[in-house]
Amino acid sequence: MKRIGYLGPPGTFSELAARFYLERLKKNGICEEPAIVCLSSFADILSAVETGEIEEGLLPFENSTEGSINIILDLLAQQFKKAKIKEEAVIPVVHQLLARKSYGPGEIEVVVSHPQALAQCRGFIEQYLYRAQKKEVVSTAEAARLVSLHQGPWAAIGASLVAETYNLVVLAENVNDYPENATRFIVISLKDSEPAPGCKTSLILSVNDRPGALCDILKEFAQRYINLTHIESRPTKGRLGDYLFFIDFEGHREDVHVRDALSHIKDYIVSMRILGSYPAHAAAKKRENS
Amino acid sequence: MKRIGYLGPPGTFSELAARFYLERLKKNGICEEPAIVCLSSFADILSAVETGEIEEGLLPFENSTEGSINIILDLLAQQFKKAKIKEEAVIPVVHQLLARKSYGPGEIEVVVSHPQALAQCRGFIEQYLYRAQKKEVVSTAEAARLVSLHQGPWAAIGASLVAETYNLVVLAENVNDYPENATRFIVISLKDSEPAPGCKTSLILSVNDRPGALCDILKEFAQRYINLTHIESRPTKGRLGDYLFFIDFEGHREDVHVRDALSHIKDYIVSMRILGSYPAHAAAKKRENS
Repeated sequence: MKRIGYLGPPGTFSELAARFYLERLKKNGICEEPAIVCLSSFADILSAVETGEIEEGLLPFENSTEGSINIILDLLAQQFKKAKIKEEAVIPVVHQLLARKSYGPGEIEVVVSHPQALAQCRGFIEQYLYRAQKKEVVSTAEAARLVSLHQGPWAAIGASLVAETYNLVVLAENVNDYPENATRFIVISLKDSEPAPGCKTSLILSVNDRPGALCDILKEFAQRYINLTHIESRPTKGRLGDYLFFIDFEGHREDVHVRDALSHIKDYIVSMRILGSYPAHAAAKKRENS
Repeated sequence: MKRIGYLGPPGTFSELAARFYLERLKKNGICEEPAIVCLSSFADILSAVETGEIEEGLLPFENSTEGSINIILDLLAQQFKKAKIKEEAVIPVVHQLLARKSYGPGEIEVVVSHPQALAQCRGFIEQYLYRAQKKEVVSTAEAARLVSLHQGPWAAIGASLVAETYNLVVLAENVNDYPENATRFIVISLKDSEPAPGCKTSLILSVNDRPGALCDILKEFAQRYINLTHIESRPTKGRLGDYLFFIDFEGHREDVHVRDALSHIKDYIVSMRILGSYPAHAAAKKRENS
């Protein structure tokens, strides 16, 4: 039976992404339902995939408000070099303000959540929770658990999914500052996907240190009408000013024009790693509240 | 008298950066010593500069281990549109493990610091502080203050500067995972700097959404041998996949070849904002422990 790992505890947006991915697998006629394994860190998920303990892992890759999830980029670049991306799942991230009973927002003394969730609701917190101190915890589910145990006027920010688990009431809905807030999750495995329409490919590049090197690389894509969907620089962790580039583009690594571009950019790089070619799927917004 | 704002409380790396900047001003023969104002958030610093309450503000911009300070990029892009960069100061960031008395690392139950500092020492914490829970607070100085008040075996990660303030002992030196760890601070003002040798320029660009648009922009720089020192994408906060680009390059916006490049890239962009042209200075490593 296939095992799929995600970052626990249950009730987070990672679980929503895992559920969405499972539904997709079922629709595709996978006969046996995979086992969902809840792990306690991103490194544990990547390590379990690389050692074969689990077959697949779900990781958040990029959020529309807060940008790339740097820890994932760094783990892929520095530590876990066998992991491949085999699928992408975009999940709408709609945050709710949750508490033990129906306090008014002005009464809330402490607002608890994951740092990413607090960042995605920064404007709401400043405007409405003016008395509240911010408390950062490891997950939105842990925030809900803490709030459910605390006697005072504390509130958590998280998915409506956790409200049920911890018997919390929804004080306010859709408290994220940007209504289109969504997170791109990736499914990690030891193999990426076969060519199919609508695939994307992700690379990590170490680029020669000379003026115009990055430009020469992008030119090879542009000349072949390959659309870059994201480019991100991350420090190599050595000298300030040394970077790795994460590049996502439309197309599969087996496509003739992609193979051609990749073979030409070899002249301008120190190293290249193909993280994988994979189909991209998006969950509908209503799912979040289901 | 000129007032320079930085993020308090005293004892953080922001104060080290402010001290370094003051020394530079003195060496340049500024007659009156500026007043250093300690403010409580990055937004407060930017707002005080834009309203003229203070003349200059110091902000961290990029760290060699953890990358760009996203909140600063977002504040500059979305909220504070009058602020200019007038100088850059690179400060070595050497972390120490601090406690009330000389515990062994294995005894430490809670390790407290700013999320960036914890991230910069992730490997050390995993290897040596295996019993310790991580606790995130708003600054390295706040971490030291908390540890100084707590009776149990807690430790803070921060600059040696705070050890004195809070009467802490140094349990371990240089606990950052990467020895070259350094942070690039920027000095914000309503005006950037006059042309001088060794200047850099920073831009925020919103790029046309078509294949090759970014490539066309980089080509204008490459053709004129203008060296890009950093390129960073940040989400626009709207639709997933819409980005702003932060570009730093060598040269002053008044240089003929830079003016020429900037006038040519106008064809490929939706909007451009010049954050400023500024000289770049680096503090020597030994300063940190002075």
